[in-house]
Amino acid sequence: MKVDVMTTAYEARPQRVVSGPGAAGRVLPEELARLGVSRVMLVAAEAELELARRITIGLDIVATFTGVRPHVPVEVAEAARALARDSGAEVLLSVGGGSTTGTAKAVALTERLPIVAVPTTYAGSEATDLWGLTDENRKTNGTDPAVLPRTVVYDPELTATMPSHLTISSGLNALAHCVDSLWAPSAGPPSTAFAVEGIRLLGQGLPGVLADSTDLQARQRSQEGTYLAAAAFASAGSGMHHKICHVLGGAYNLEHAAMHAVVLPHVLGFNGPAAPEAADRVAIALDGAGFGPDGGTNGLSGSDEPEQAAAANALATLQALYNSLGPSTSLGELGLRVEQVPEAARLALETMPPSNPRPVTEEDLRALIGRAQAGERAVVVPLTH
Amino acid sequence: MKVDVMTTAYEARPQRVVSGPGAAGRVLPEELARLGVSRVMLVAAEAELELARRITIGLDIVATFTGVRPHVPVEVAEAARALARDSGAEVLLSVGGGSTTGTAKAVALTERLPIVAVPTTYAGSEATDLWGLTDENRKTNGTDPAVLPRTVVYDPELTATMPSHLTISSGLNALAHCVDSLWAPSAGPPSTAFAVEGIRLLGQGLPGVLADSTDLQARQRSQEGTYLAAAAFASAGSGMHHKICHVLGGAYNLEHAAMHAVVLPHVLGFNGPAAPEAADRVAIALDGAGFGPDGGTNGLSGSDEPEQAAAANALATLQALYNSLGPSTSLGELGLRVEQVPEAARLALETMPPSNPRPVTEEDLRALIGRAQAGERAVVVPLTH
Repeated sequence: MKVDVMTTAYEARPQRVVSGPGAAGRVLPEELARLGVSRVMLVAAEAELELARRITIGLDIVATFTGVRPHVPVEVAEAARALARDSGAEVLLSVGGGSTTGTAKAVALTERLPIVAVPTTYAGSEATDLWGLTDENRKTNGTDPAVLPRTVVYDPELTATMPSHLTISSGLNALAHCVDSLWAPSAGPPSTAFAVEGIRLLGQGLPGVLADSTDLQARQRSQEGTYLAAAAFASAGSGMHHKICHVLGGAYNLEHAAMHAVVLPHVLGFNGPAAPEAADRVAIALDGAGFGPDGGTNGLSGSDEPEQAAAANALATLQALYNSLGPSTSLGELGLRVEQVPEAARLALETMPPSNPRPVTEEDLRALIGRAQAGERAVVVPLTH
Repeated sequence: MKVDVMTTAYEARPQRVVSGPGAAGRVLPEELARLGVSRVMLVAAEAELELARRITIGLDIVATFTGVRPHVPVEVAEAARALARDSGAEVLLSVGGGSTTGTAKAVALTERLPIVAVPTTYAGSEATDLWGLTDENRKTNGTDPAVLPRTVVYDPELTATMPSHLTISSGLNALAHCVDSLWAPSAGPPSTAFAVEGIRLLGQGLPGVLADSTDLQARQRSQEGTYLAAAAFASAGSGMHHKICHVLGGAYNLEHAAMHAVVLPHVLGFNGPAAPEAADRVAIALDGAGFGPDGGTNGLSGSDEPEQAAAANALATLQALYNSLGPSTSLGELGLRVEQVPEAARLALETMPPSNPRPVTEEDLRALIGRAQAGERAVVVPLTH
């Protein structure tokens, strides 16, 4: 009898997801009717307002909130909530990126109104029941079923104005959600299914978007991959990668998505040898997306340890994808100073999940964050070193 | 710009899924408390009653219904509903196979009580909001959110008494749900993610269970694959395979799961050339489960058409899995007579989904059902024939 069996729990939450080119301008009346609501409060930043107006022609917009700001400051949430109450809105329609969705969630948290989310970036907030607020730099987070958008409408045409660097960093942030979900504390078959398919869709979609910005199929794949990434993350929880990034983002205010892109290969190189099945899944999914290994050595060429071979293979396929996208590769570029690395390692150590496939020491984190800070190529860290 | 973009809709429904060896005897008190209920009506067939009693020790069982019969006759449903009302039960706890879950669903449909399902087979009914009743051989089916079990507890130890032939046929029935989901009318990224992972888990799990009946990891994989299969099917709807089987099952009363196992390779051979991406996914998933092609020709060896190569490869990997399991391979064995084939083809034609990747003629169906009836090896049907 085999022994590595375990108990997992998976919580499927009610959400309807519609995806298709031009969908936003077509399905909103029907989707609102399906929810039995008509009085709409539109939430959109100034930059997306024209776009939002275009796709909401004919809807009963009783209020429009444009005061969106990053990290949802409490006073922004309060203003949006007051507007929702005063206008008698029955539904919140968010059109925009993560901060916009987050503002609608802050309103839903207290006002218990349903959200219809129309994302224009790859932030993924629309697929989770996580909310966040900031009050004088103090962040409060939580989960509540009421903030999970009841309906999400993905329309790849709406991502057309996203700049390339954001496509790359936020797309790789989504990819990091997928990879980290494979070994996160509450990982199970449904989250793994979503994560692996998300890797494949992002691996196919992102290079396609960069190669031809009018390629709607590539845009749709990228969006759908983002959805699967966020749904996998919401179910599996935070693994080593997200814990490190959470600490770095909180303590040193590094650019969120770009930081995730930099850190991911280093965590894969560290966890991969202790999680060969996860490493295999990454490699196979990226290979299915057309990325074979790039022939790099990753410090392990000729290794005859199968675990390390799986990790080396996964890292090589990921490197091939990175090579095609050209993201930032150094935390130093993003503002982390070399003398901050020891402190960052100390802070990150406290957050490491006990279920991580490989035990993590402060020295491991100092080496990992140090390489990421310096912009060195990620390496497979052998199990005995 | 690419053109094969389309609009898809996906409906995630609220359900909690717990999976693990020994889980049933451990987590039920906690899961009932989570739902805020305590007065339990147990639904279990006589054959599972002892097992059901063992895992419900300490629960407040206010009624026990054992009159489970296949296809849920209306009089059985009425008796169970009356018992639920008279006993003041707050929750239905079903322990058993598809007919048992189906009986609990029939009660939930009218009495609006939540269901906690503990499956002992690979039927998969616990993962869908489909219900069915029979009244003097007339079947009524429908979907209702109220019949979707709120909580499912998978415990691989509970499948230990399933006979091998049922493990094989019901496991391959689940596999058919996965494959058919790849081209079903409402297929989308979430259903495809579940389907592909389901194929992989069933491909790993089923041969493991047959090789060593005490292998709990293989049993857990098979159960989790069954869940993903049913969830994929519930989301994607019925494709060509299920439509054919529905007609054959209804008109000729063939054994449900065994029939699905026989028909699947024939439908894969037919649809595969028109759905090369789906064929690739099947082959890669089964290859990930350790099944390479078995070297059979499937009538297409040496073909230089890439679509047909993908289909031939998928069919060969499926055949390798079948070879390791040894299911029934002939509808004749299951009771379909050769002279019934033309009528079956005529009936099936009317149900073919317009979205099927390949147009289907009556002649196609006559050939397909004819080969399945005779127990011939499945072949790839070239696009020009």
